[in-house]
Amino acid sequence: MRTTVGIIGAGPAGLLLARLLRNAGIDSVVLESRDRDYVERRQRAGILEQGTVDVLREAGAGERMDREGLRHDGIELRFDKKRHRVDFPALTGGRSVMVYAQTEVCKDLIALQLKEGGPLLFETEALAVEGADTDRPRVRFRREGVEDVLECEYVVGCDGFWGVARKAVPAGLARTFERTYPFGWLGILADVAPSHDELVYARHDRGFALLSMRSPSVSRLYLQVPAGTDAEQWGDEEIWAELERRFETADDWRLERGPITQKSVTPMRSYVHEPMRHGRLYLAGDAAHIVPPTGAKGLNLAVGDVVTFARALVHRRETGSEDLLDAYSATCLRRVWQAERFSYDMTTLLHRAPDATPFEDRLATARLERIASSRAAETDLAEAYTGFPLG
Amino acid sequence: MRTTVGIIGAGPAGLLLARLLRNAGIDSVVLESRDRDYVERRQRAGILEQGTVDVLREAGAGERMDREGLRHDGIELRFDKKRHRVDFPALTGGRSVMVYAQTEVCKDLIALQLKEGGPLLFETEALAVEGADTDRPRVRFRREGVEDVLECEYVVGCDGFWGVARKAVPAGLARTFERTYPFGWLGILADVAPSHDELVYARHDRGFALLSMRSPSVSRLYLQVPAGTDAEQWGDEEIWAELERRFETADDWRLERGPITQKSVTPMRSYVHEPMRHGRLYLAGDAAHIVPPTGAKGLNLAVGDVVTFARALVHRRETGSEDLLDAYSATCLRRVWQAERFSYDMTTLLHRAPDATPFEDRLATARLERIASSRAAETDLAEAYTGFPLG
Repeated sequence: MRTTVGIIGAGPAGLLLARLLRNAGIDSVVLESRDRDYVERRQRAGILEQGTVDVLREAGAGERMDREGLRHDGIELRFDKKRHRVDFPALTGGRSVMVYAQTEVCKDLIALQLKEGGPLLFETEALAVEGADTDRPRVRFRREGVEDVLECEYVVGCDGFWGVARKAVPAGLARTFERTYPFGWLGILADVAPSHDELVYARHDRGFALLSMRSPSVSRLYLQVPAGTDAEQWGDEEIWAELERRFETADDWRLERGPITQKSVTPMRSYVHEPMRHGRLYLAGDAAHIVPPTGAKGLNLAVGDVVTFARALVHRRETGSEDLLDAYSATCLRRVWQAERFSYDMTTLLHRAPDATPFEDRLATARLERIASSRAAETDLAEAYTGFPLG
Repeated sequence: MRTTVGIIGAGPAGLLLARLLRNAGIDSVVLESRDRDYVERRQRAGILEQGTVDVLREAGAGERMDREGLRHDGIELRFDKKRHRVDFPALTGGRSVMVYAQTEVCKDLIALQLKEGGPLLFETEALAVEGADTDRPRVRFRREGVEDVLECEYVVGCDGFWGVARKAVPAGLARTFERTYPFGWLGILADVAPSHDELVYARHDRGFALLSMRSPSVSRLYLQVPAGTDAEQWGDEEIWAELERRFETADDWRLERGPITQKSVTPMRSYVHEPMRHGRLYLAGDAAHIVPPTGAKGLNLAVGDVVTFARALVHRRETGSEDLLDAYSATCLRRVWQAERFSYDMTTLLHRAPDATPFEDRLATARLERIASSRAAETDLAEAYTGFPLG
């Protein structure tokens, strides 16, 4: 098999890249180890930055998002039983975010790709990227028990943190940056209307809690739990009681309960692999970097990476210049590190480390008070939350 | 001996308080364990916030400051050999800072107090504050070998971190918050014109460096060194060479050398004692809180505390209401914690911890890049540097 761009992984990064390339008249093949059903059910992020929304629309993949997605003009910070709303458009000159689950983005892109795009091969496991530093990189893969090779001009690894693409970068040429956190998120889906119409980020002495939503009738709620917690340790009643405690306010706000339909624990990690390119292998999304979910940046970073790659390849086609392809890693990493910084800061701001000192607790409160009282500090947060510029 | 306000300590907090009270027609006595010469030579901070400058002027203590002090409209951040200037007035609606050494503030206030004010007793050691929770608090002290008692209506402890005032707060009623840092500052005074006309804060892989000044012909320079470093370990040539490395730029900026006239190491600590009041004993300045010097907040916090106390006492005189006196601790602590936060953040941003991970190094760079590229982030810094509002 031959193609111009071999794409490993049919998550949002790989699927969007295939779409962007198809729209630019560049052919690609997407290899995905899982089946379609699995990919369409994998629960992940749900906040799309303004720039991500724009990209999906321009790619012709925004129709259902615009119909079903929930535009959010702010978030609420909750601490010491106080509530502070951050008004995104007022602070950023009109920017906002969209609540539209990653699973839905994937469904939309899969449907488009199968209808109009190049090959999207499910249950096709990439085994290795070979010849990354040659003009003819190859992806070795297995499909229906048979090994084969995809001959490419470029390979883009969109296969996540555990994927094979990153392994093709020689260890001696790479640097990795990592931080693990001593806590994770216990997340639930519940069949109940969200108790607030915007996301609520709560810092509490007992730990962080987040109120989010998947739709007007489905709530997505999270609790900070110790790293390694088994979701089944937590009974439904216990989860609701703990959520109520952490979201407590001085006014008469109330958390509505409903049947919990899903329960899982997400670990928290910060990770960056530098560079994001080796020869003709390009890494995008979680294959190159992980952020803790607090800043809602994971999906948006992946989108930024593939947009940067697609632009660079189109530029190469149009001008013959490899400048943008050569700059891919540096261009992406500037944005990646801003997102890493923001995600780390939001995590530190809102979570309570098990070994937090009283001094650190007071610092966190002072930071929240600062955001609530300084337009500059609040704008800094709003700019970062609604998204760093692409490129 | 009797007085309305017994003030322990003739540092800038105690001296300014005596001046503010005298201007309001309230009598006080200042007790200082050291002699005048020592107090006037004690090298400390040198950056006065806009609010501190205003207070000194209003108190009639700004004449020499306005003549000899250096108004600074910005600072320079230096990292990765790049230079970024933060323009205070442009970002804060006209605010700036004044470079005028704490020793000079003390000299001015001492001269005024001896000429026009109440008793200022040097070489008079406060031994204990007694009866803080009564209407008649007392300071027991020793002067010329003889113990005596100062009977007061109020006692204000301006006697620094090691003073006796704080010890009069029963441990069971107090909470302390502390952080020590694994590094300190090796500071020098050198007889050479400053190599830059504004302060330069440099973050370097080898550690932090700060270029500051005492006057147009005297430079004040600092190097981050491991905690516990003996200043005499460092030869003059070695100090200049290390400063040159850390201040290195991509352009032709040069560090000028000159004779080093003083050398010392300052430890770095964050500390807060809550509450800042017990009965009729009020704690002000370093007696209640310490910040690492990176944010230049120590002296300015002390000024805020004593202004808050003086206002509260005048309010009591004028209205009979104790409201502001009762609110003293909470009022001061709001500002204190903002300064603690800022000082901690500036310290973390600019220093390199001995056990810093590569991830943390990259975060610090991303933070500096953010400040250099976002007006909001830069304004947040400029607002904090030029000073939080009083009261």
